[in-house]
Amino acid sequence: MSLIENLKEGCIPSEIKKIALNEKIDINILLEKILSGRIVVPKNKIRSDIFCAGIGEGLSTKINANIGTSERSSDIDKELKKLSVLVKAKADAVMDLSTGGDLDTTRQEIIKHSPIPVGTVPIYQAAARAKEKHGSFEKMTKEDIFESIERHAADGADFMTIHAGVTLSTLEKLERDGRIIGIVSRGGAILANWMIQNDKENPLYQEFDRLLEITSEYDITLSLGDGLRPGCIADATDKAQIQELIILGELVKRAREASVQVMVEGPGHIPVNQIYENIKMAKELCDGAPFYVLGPIVTDVAPGYDHITAAIGGALAASYGADFLCYVTPSEHLGLPSVDDVREGVIASKIAAHAADVAKGVSGASDWDLKMAKARSVLDWEKQIELSVDPEKSKKIFKRNNLIEDGPCSMCGDYCSIKMMDCIKT
Amino acid sequence: MSLIENLKEGCIPSEIKKIALNEKIDINILLEKILSGRIVVPKNKIRSDIFCAGIGEGLSTKINANIGTSERSSDIDKELKKLSVLVKAKADAVMDLSTGGDLDTTRQEIIKHSPIPVGTVPIYQAAARAKEKHGSFEKMTKEDIFESIERHAADGADFMTIHAGVTLSTLEKLERDGRIIGIVSRGGAILANWMIQNDKENPLYQEFDRLLEITSEYDITLSLGDGLRPGCIADATDKAQIQELIILGELVKRAREASVQVMVEGPGHIPVNQIYENIKMAKELCDGAPFYVLGPIVTDVAPGYDHITAAIGGALAASYGADFLCYVTPSEHLGLPSVDDVREGVIASKIAAHAADVAKGVSGASDWDLKMAKARSVLDWEKQIELSVDPEKSKKIFKRNNLIEDGPCSMCGDYCSIKMMDCIKT
Repeated sequence: MSLIENLKEGCIPSEIKKIALNEKIDINILLEKILSGRIVVPKNKIRSDIFCAGIGEGLSTKINANIGTSERSSDIDKELKKLSVLVKAKADAVMDLSTGGDLDTTRQEIIKHSPIPVGTVPIYQAAARAKEKHGSFEKMTKEDIFESIERHAADGADFMTIHAGVTLSTLEKLERDGRIIGIVSRGGAILANWMIQNDKENPLYQEFDRLLEITSEYDITLSLGDGLRPGCIADATDKAQIQELIILGELVKRAREASVQVMVEGPGHIPVNQIYENIKMAKELCDGAPFYVLGPIVTDVAPGYDHITAAIGGALAASYGADFLCYVTPSEHLGLPSVDDVREGVIASKIAAHAADVAKGVSGASDWDLKMAKARSVLDWEKQIELSVDPEKSKKIFKRNNLIEDGPCSMCGDYCSIKMMDCIKT
Repeated sequence: MSLIENLKEGCIPSEIKKIALNEKIDINILLEKILSGRIVVPKNKIRSDIFCAGIGEGLSTKINANIGTSERSSDIDKELKKLSVLVKAKADAVMDLSTGGDLDTTRQEIIKHSPIPVGTVPIYQAAARAKEKHGSFEKMTKEDIFESIERHAADGADFMTIHAGVTLSTLEKLERDGRIIGIVSRGGAILANWMIQNDKENPLYQEFDRLLEITSEYDITLSLGDGLRPGCIADATDKAQIQELIILGELVKRAREASVQVMVEGPGHIPVNQIYENIKMAKELCDGAPFYVLGPIVTDVAPGYDHITAAIGGALAASYGADFLCYVTPSEHLGLPSVDDVREGVIASKIAAHAADVAKGVSGASDWDLKMAKARSVLDWEKQIELSVDPEKSKKIFKRNNLIEDGPCSMCGDYCSIKMMDCIKT
């Protein structure tokens, strides 16, 4: 039975109780929100012993880190190293976006070693197989697609990105209105390319019920991909993007009717002044389904620093109601991330998520800040380092130029405001 | 004659014409805003050949980088190295916050070498001299303070932070309501300490007219410091902070009446959900005076990454109307910044400022993004690197794992969405 079916029968799995406890949320509210689709808990039926994340309304903002090979870099060990780094940096989920090397083994190894939910994008493998078998992406068959979905499901994927909203009608909007950068979603481009070359509707849209049967069988959470997300801020919030979102909203309804957990993916690239509308619109059109954004990046001009442009957008998006942030690394727009980039990306995303949680009043979020403030007010450096989002880095910077453990730091020395004001108190 | 007096006489200095040109703003609107105090152009009368920055309503958001020695690190050459790095990274202004070593020489060297406006905080030197002459900060005399201001003015400081809003009435609010961390402004703490120990009103408040005479003589822009800014998000937007802001608003009026250019400093630490109110309130209470924020940092838990927490807050603050962002470096809360930290801080702050400029529709701001998007849409890597906020870093990452100059990058390879969609077009 799926989680939803279990809950309907009044049976509450232990991981759900754990979430209620960790998130300091009333269990009945949690159950009600899972049942109404406002919270999802991605976990494949065949997976055990994973640390489940609740994603959605009222819970702390979760973050996902993408890893995976490409044709030019397909070392499984390197990807497993990234996995271990992102888990240590406290990502809540990981996605395997591999497109190079042995896709099956890579995915299986990542799932095997991941203590957190794993997401995949089966269309990549379908395309790869088509290239292998028939020589090109566009010769991919419907069966290639569903076979790949079955395979990922059977391997234990906890959630899957499915670009079912790239339809002939959305492509028509795209073509009519034009864009600076057409399609930047790999999955979206594979499908659009296939649809145009073969003059056919998207099989994932057309056979959505078949998809629901598979995800239902394994209790996989659907993540409805935004294949037409904007690829630069000038393209943000355009007709193609919103047309696709409307379709995703309809698919949310169908997934819920089949007791399949579902979330919705969103941009991407959005300027600061359009983030509020994007989040509210997505929540409205998708009936409160958990909203999973990629960044969003708030300017196009900072390759090398897109963990920062994404932290700005992510903090804002999550404070307005986005539930799940996909990290962006300093390598974004330039190449595959290194192990260090993965770490930087996760930490920047964690900061954005936490800043948003404080802003939206998530239960207990600001306690962390309060503890830090109290440690700071008494110049307790050990405690400040221990409480910081990355104790290793803060310790390194502190040690670099401070020899005194219980006094003011090298920035102010005797001019330390805390020390000065302390003199008055005593 | 001061800038304001010149403009009143109908004489427009060349630097003002340059600002209108660079910012693509109508010269008459610029003049009107300078005359009404909504834009300031900090430049000491004795300084020549500096690249002036217009700060205020309708102009691009400017950023400031703090450098300066402390008792534990007082190497002038290191500070000059930081100066050269921050200028190269395109900071619009620099503040010398030195408190250690030979303060006069440090300041003079920084002013001599800086092609951009230099700000100082004379109270630090007044306190240092008091410690030298009388053995402690609290034995500082009113004359020590004004002598230090005169000295900075005569050396060519373009703007000065003056904590004239720390008054007996604001301290009373602070004491009555309590805080997690009392005072975190060094200048604020020096003055509060002095006022309490000597049971006297703040001389900078009491003799504000004397201060205006000096700043008027040298045409220095006053930056009204927020000595009672919150030091953690739990203390944000409290009575002491707002009480001080009300006083700063009154002082803005007095400065304007004396034809002295004036801006107002603000926090500091503000959670995401309080930034809008803080900016709007400051603009309202200070009659549209340029607002200069420090960060603001949106969570306390990320020492080592406060350039990121500040970029989040700065982007938001500036998009709501803050005009001038003081950078925060990865070393904040841990010690004096290194040369690398200075660079990281400036770039993070530039990103925040630019994201805000796009959001608030600053003339020409989004052209940069559009150029980048167009280069990205044709996989023109050379152009993308050239256009990026830090070409050196983006080039390094790109070269790290891409051997092909005119194809897709290592992230997607053959799965490049741009390349795939391109196939259809051709």
